[in-house]
Amino acid sequence: MEARITLLPGDGIGPEIVAQAKRVLDTIAQKYDHQFETPSCPMGGNAIDEFGDPLPAETLETCKASNAILLGAVGGPKWDDPSAKTRPEAGLLKIRKELGLFANLRPIKPYSELLDASPLKREIIEGTDILFFRELTGGIYFGESGRMEHPDGEKAFSVMTYTTKEIARIVRLAAEAARNRRGKLTSVDKANVLEVSRLWRQVAADVIKNEFPDIEYEVVLVDAMAMHLISRPSDFDVVVTGNMFGDILTDEGSMLPGSLGLLPSASLGADGPGLYEPIHGSAPDIAGKGIANPLATILATAMLLRHSLNLETEATAVEEAVARVLAAGHRTADIAAGGKSISTTEMGDCVIQELS
Amino acid sequence: MEARITLLPGDGIGPEIVAQAKRVLDTIAQKYDHQFETPSCPMGGNAIDEFGDPLPAETLETCKASNAILLGAVGGPKWDDPSAKTRPEAGLLKIRKELGLFANLRPIKPYSELLDASPLKREIIEGTDILFFRELTGGIYFGESGRMEHPDGEKAFSVMTYTTKEIARIVRLAAEAARNRRGKLTSVDKANVLEVSRLWRQVAADVIKNEFPDIEYEVVLVDAMAMHLISRPSDFDVVVTGNMFGDILTDEGSMLPGSLGLLPSASLGADGPGLYEPIHGSAPDIAGKGIANPLATILATAMLLRHSLNLETEATAVEEAVARVLAAGHRTADIAAGGKSISTTEMGDCVIQELS
Ligand SMILES: CC(C)[C@H](C(=O)O)[C@@H](O)C(=O)O
Ligand SMILES: CC(C)[C@H](C(=O)O)[C@@H](O)C(=O)O
Repeated sequence: MEARITLLPGDGIGPEIVAQAKRVLDTIAQKYDHQFETPSCPMGGNAIDEFGDPLPAETLETCKASNAILLGAVGGPKWDDPSAKTRPEAGLLKIRKELGLFANLRPIKPYSELLDASPLKREIIEGTDILFFRELTGGIYFGESGRMEHPDGEKAFSVMTYTTKEIARIVRLAAEAARNRRGKLTSVDKANVLEVSRLWRQVAADVIKNEFPDIEYEVVLVDAMAMHLISRPSDFDVVVTGNMFGDILTDEGSMLPGSLGLLPSASLGADGPGLYEPIHGSAPDIAGKGIANPLATILATAMLLRHSLNLETEATAVEEAVARVLAAGHRTADIAAGGKSISTTEMGDCVIQELS
Repeated sequence: MEARITLLPGDGIGPEIVAQAKRVLDTIAQKYDHQFETPSCPMGGNAIDEFGDPLPAETLETCKASNAILLGAVGGPKWDDPSAKTRPEAGLLKIRKELGLFANLRPIKPYSELLDASPLKREIIEGTDILFFRELTGGIYFGESGRMEHPDGEKAFSVMTYTTKEIARIVRLAAEAARNRRGKLTSVDKANVLEVSRLWRQVAADVIKNEFPDIEYEVVLVDAMAMHLISRPSDFDVVVTGNMFGDILTDEGSMLPGSLGLLPSASLGADGPGLYEPIHGSAPDIAGKGIANPLATILATAMLLRHSLNLETEATAVEEAVARVLAAGHRTADIAAGGKSISTTEMGDCVIQELS
């Protein structure tokens, strides 16, 4: 097939890890006879420096005209001044909104070889296989906000909102995924306190009752979920929640496998290109040293092949190659537990060798 | 001294555990020559059943006329219908607001004897000693909320707000506590996205700069904090945050010690009585069986003696008695790890014996 995959290397270690993912894409293209065009565009801090805009119009246009987008990571101390006119995060929020990427998928499935690196005990984490669906273009991230004078000084506000439609579409997507997995869906809210959560709970229940009577469905309060994720993570299959709760819970969940450098994420819309990225940040402290772990980005590439290009065989091939590389004991520094480690490029070499 | 301590036994196991705490109060009164008056009032589901109100006016009046309040736990499946006219939680939110209990203190400090029950590895949890300050009468819990018709179905909203004053007073309290502990304060927000968090960050920084230049101060994003709490909990001393973030993070933190049944909390205002309670729920499944763990409530009583009655010696005596009881190997079922366990009353006996 022919496809255009826009690369957004970003800041810090972004360019190094995206370079390895690009090699993987090239290998897949060659082996399975595809034509992948892979333009690279500025985004994040580097784009602020060059264009005064974390998401320049041209980058956005190129993204819109693609089949999928692969992002490295954005941000760094250089652009961290809270009073700055614009910040790398603004680019992230804008691309999500502009492309209508309302569903953020985050699989949490530890590799058994790396379980010892988990902060959790082996017997707790073993068997964990969660797929989070975080709503990504609504909620308090995109509600009205502002400041005003107030007798008690200033008063600031940020509004959390959801509409029936916004809730229904993400719950539907999550329920479909559950149906293709172990058939269990957990919806997380704070309906005992928040009106917006009460609507969430009601709409979710309706969607499940009318369209997915076959799946096992439960609701859990966000505070309780923060506990269960640590105490019994293997009880969950698919978990769906709003933007802010999802931000917190998926990051909490990302600690469980003990290897942040291996976790990918996908952000999908109703149509148009999806955005794929590792969940780790731009790691400015190790940028340019050639030691960053490219595997999360390579696994994000596998998600891209699966979800945006419908290339299941190719996606599985990449995932299995990564699994074999890990099983063979190859480790970048972040997952080497002080043992022998290889470079970013060498890790790329290992995956490509397994693929060829 | 003379003091009036209002008991709110509540629902489920509430009455059983508060009964043991009352015995501890009686023992302390006798030993240290105090007069404690301890009226008991309905609140929660039982108050809904009897008066149609989870916090009857008379209960509130008695609370207001006290030096301190000891709460067991409220709620249970019987009152869980989301469409019910009122629910036990409404009583909790109302008493917090009516008494101006803006600061919720939650210590997270594992007992070394129980560390094996933690879902975290021993080397991660060891040395953890965190004191959370959660803002309790503001934020999205008390902002405007509602629903409206919308082209996409219904639209619901809940507003997160904070004023300069609300932020400053909780940060100040937390910073004072930090000064009396290890001198480190972590403020948690989501200032990279939320306007209300940007005000939080700004006001907090001002308070620290002007009034607490001597303490070590850092800010952490709420998603990152959800990770750090699991991966390096022992790095934190005092943590201060808003109502919603605090709800999630303190519950996540409560899993760390592996013994929910041992964690107390205090809710304090500028003046007037403080409210003390175990952080665990009403555990309707074991209510009436006489096996509930009364230690969290007894430890909440110690916090009451310290913070509301200024009886540091007595507070420490209670805490040390509990520590000795645990060191001697006495366990209720929830912390017995399948081994020999004693009843609620027997656990009360043990603490009282250590105290006398
Ligand atoms: C950088 C920030 C705006 C972003 C978010 O909160 O959504 C990040 O934390 C994430 O989860 O992708
Ligand atoms: C019951 C509920 C309203 C309450 C809250 O969210 O504040 C509880 O979770 C708590 O943390 O005390």
